[in-house]
Amino acid sequence: MNAVPLEALQRVVGKPNLLVSAEERFTYAFDASKLEAVPDAVVFPASAEEVSEILALAVRYGFPVVPRGAGSGMVGGVLAQKGGVVLVLTRLNRILELDPENMLAVVEPGVVTGRLQAEAARHGLFYPPDPASLQFSTLGGNVATGAGGPRAVKYGVTRDYVLGLEVVLPTGAAIRTGARTIKSVVGYDLTRLFVGSEGTLGVVTQITLRLIPAPETVRTLLAVFPDLDDAARTVSAVMRSRIIPSTLEFMDRATIEAVENHLKLGLPTEAEAILLIEVDGRHTVVDEDAARVEAICREHGATQVERAGTDTERDRLWKARRSISPALGRIRSGKINEDVTVPRTRIPELIRTIRDLAARYDLVIVNFGHAGDGNIHTNIMVDRKDADELRRAERAVEELFRAVIDLGGTLSGEHGIGITKSPFLQWEVDEGAFEAMWRIKRALDPANILNPGKMFVPNRAFFAKGS
Amino acid sequence: MNAVPLEALQRVVGKPNLLVSAEERFTYAFDASKLEAVPDAVVFPASAEEVSEILALAVRYGFPVVPRGAGSGMVGGVLAQKGGVVLVLTRLNRILELDPENMLAVVEPGVVTGRLQAEAARHGLFYPPDPASLQFSTLGGNVATGAGGPRAVKYGVTRDYVLGLEVVLPTGAAIRTGARTIKSVVGYDLTRLFVGSEGTLGVVTQITLRLIPAPETVRTLLAVFPDLDDAARTVSAVMRSRIIPSTLEFMDRATIEAVENHLKLGLPTEAEAILLIEVDGRHTVVDEDAARVEAICREHGATQVERAGTDTERDRLWKARRSISPALGRIRSGKINEDVTVPRTRIPELIRTIRDLAARYDLVIVNFGHAGDGNIHTNIMVDRKDADELRRAERAVEELFRAVIDLGGTLSGEHGIGITKSPFLQWEVDEGAFEAMWRIKRALDPANILNPGKMFVPNRAFFAKGS
Repeated sequence: MNAVPLEALQRVVGKPNLLVSAEERFTYAFDASKLEAVPDAVVFPASAEEVSEILALAVRYGFPVVPRGAGSGMVGGVLAQKGGVVLVLTRLNRILELDPENMLAVVEPGVVTGRLQAEAARHGLFYPPDPASLQFSTLGGNVATGAGGPRAVKYGVTRDYVLGLEVVLPTGAAIRTGARTIKSVVGYDLTRLFVGSEGTLGVVTQITLRLIPAPETVRTLLAVFPDLDDAARTVSAVMRSRIIPSTLEFMDRATIEAVENHLKLGLPTEAEAILLIEVDGRHTVVDEDAARVEAICREHGATQVERAGTDTERDRLWKARRSISPALGRIRSGKINEDVTVPRTRIPELIRTIRDLAARYDLVIVNFGHAGDGNIHTNIMVDRKDADELRRAERAVEELFRAVIDLGGTLSGEHGIGITKSPFLQWEVDEGAFEAMWRIKRALDPANILNPGKMFVPNRAFFAKGS
Repeated sequence: MNAVPLEALQRVVGKPNLLVSAEERFTYAFDASKLEAVPDAVVFPASAEEVSEILALAVRYGFPVVPRGAGSGMVGGVLAQKGGVVLVLTRLNRILELDPENMLAVVEPGVVTGRLQAEAARHGLFYPPDPASLQFSTLGGNVATGAGGPRAVKYGVTRDYVLGLEVVLPTGAAIRTGARTIKSVVGYDLTRLFVGSEGTLGVVTQITLRLIPAPETVRTLLAVFPDLDDAARTVSAVMRSRIIPSTLEFMDRATIEAVENHLKLGLPTEAEAILLIEVDGRHTVVDEDAARVEAICREHGATQVERAGTDTERDRLWKARRSISPALGRIRSGKINEDVTVPRTRIPELIRTIRDLAARYDLVIVNFGHAGDGNIHTNIMVDRKDADELRRAERAVEELFRAVIDLGGTLSGEHGIGITKSPFLQWEVDEGAFEAMWRIKRALDPANILNPGKMFVPNRAFFAKGS
């Protein structure tokens, strides 16, 4: 690996947009994983042309380029663990176009997700994907990771809203993919190949997004279940009733206890599960839908159901869900946060497996998340100074992943692979599919300058053979 | 190109599943384009393993393999214009699994789309994609072409329902892509790379599809407009009213005339446009939605609006739309059927451009299709024995494509590229994106055995350079 040519980079972006001091580089050594890797330099390009010039330098000098937005990813995807340059896209932060008639937006990757949502709302439109980080994460990062969120159960994930991209490839200048229309079958679907590719294939410099009409109103319900299977059967029954909730969130007993110990909200700590359910849509149906959902909850063993129509009541019901993260901080200083996903009927088996793991490895494991699409956030609480606890947690994660695959599930619903899950990618992806992915990586990034060592495990024999 | 090893093929599939006589091969020389190419042999594999063995033979002997379902494609995508073997997937026709609780189906590629829809309906579930050919086209073909249909405006296209695939690659055995859950971000999105790849990257042998709850009911409206812009503004106004119709079909004056001359339904031949609009969903809202849509039509200049609630009334309103194809057969023996797509607000400009082309080139051009997503089927009526008319039509197509690109549109909304549109692919796809596609093609099919000469133009300098 050759040194990063700082003078050449400075000629591309200008002095104020290149960070080289140790202190400044250190601030770009992190994301929301607890990993750390200090880059050799940090650059802030202002255009696709500058990105293109930086990639050309990277190919010539052989240094890694790690594209990055707000750094809110969970899996170390924006860490420069092989050195090189962190390429920060926050200066590309314009909403270039918002077309209410054709219901689409064209944005730069540095636009914060919540900002686009607010802008769309001013036109009665809606950009549904809602990762928890939406008030600071960027649309470029959402595209790179294929971000999801609670609303995915009804509205889908980021990939379902990306119509087209401008992408700078390491082999040349910017290309355009996709179209400004939902229908387009002209050549390969490069758009969705780049969505979720975690900055390993190209640098996204422009995004065309589909918007939809905003729902008129929303109703919120909170239901308490003494029995886990009853809660799971409720999830299926709601989905089968032809009502697709806009949110169907789940908290297990460990989560309820953690939140109650933290906040004293009066949550029933003997309950096995709480479901937080929202229905949205037309004024004329949401009350009917909410009543139907409430009836389904009660028929399936809910001992308590609360409904909210006003914003204040809604905030009260969401309080427990929103307090999970701070509450967990009181159990242990650290957590290993997985986002495994199983077909929704398998959730009870998953939760029971996790309880068994918690008992066998003497760990506190807290489960909550998006029950409607089977995406459960499994938090193994750890004190990172406790080497033994950390070791037990790591073993529990491996067993968890095996169980998820046995249940027909997937290792990551919305966080991605990055560094933290790359040792496990091949547990899920078969050898032929893995080879196909690596062939695509080599075809589009033959010098392997873009986010090297992410997603693919770098030290496998296959790689030595391939690159 | 070496000869096809018939004996080796026969050892793979057995004698009854290999066609070699001229008569039998001739029946696999066509699709819904008017092109013709007789293959050297036709094979009917019964499993992914047999497909894998056939591809291995193709790599060894260097003959082309052209995967095919029902052959209802419009662009010559299943024609063996370079010889070789047509690989027919109709024996792989089992619905392997229909899971109502997790709302998914696992099918083989030879399952006819309508059959899955009927099976899903028995469980109160719905597989929305509805290409016009759905009663005979196969799901494998739908996946290969990324098929759409009228319902796409509300429900999306085939790619939005494919969760995962089993695909046999020319470089090895079958791989699995995707997951059984909506959320999964584990490695590159190979699933959507194969959707719409027109049999050029791999042979799909199994498909996991997402199903959704069936809508409770549907209402149909037919609205007549004396002014084209009024009809177009109605389309936008309906979409902006927070009602997304499940169908929003458009017929222009030339179409109305053709159908009326054929059937004498009493259609207003002086009208500039007819919109056929459906709303579906909950019993409690469809009447309200239909009333709102009717009001919007009248506010925007509709001179006549009819509504249907019963199946009989609905059939009557659909009669004109369904009669277009037979009616066109009375104008000319042949037609050039394009499926250009523009942002929906640009439809009036597109229609005016087409009228101007019809006048300048002395052609009958009939436009109808999916106005909600801007996907307009443009039919240039031709007598294929009239060389001059054919030449004029071809020139009109070229001008049409230029206009569509200038309007921010795409050359194909749902038919794909195949042979007929391959000379125009690079009008829409920029050089860098085209090169990226070709790099992917070479990475996954280095021997170029799968559907060679489709999608990419085979005789460009780039190809000579690349392969």
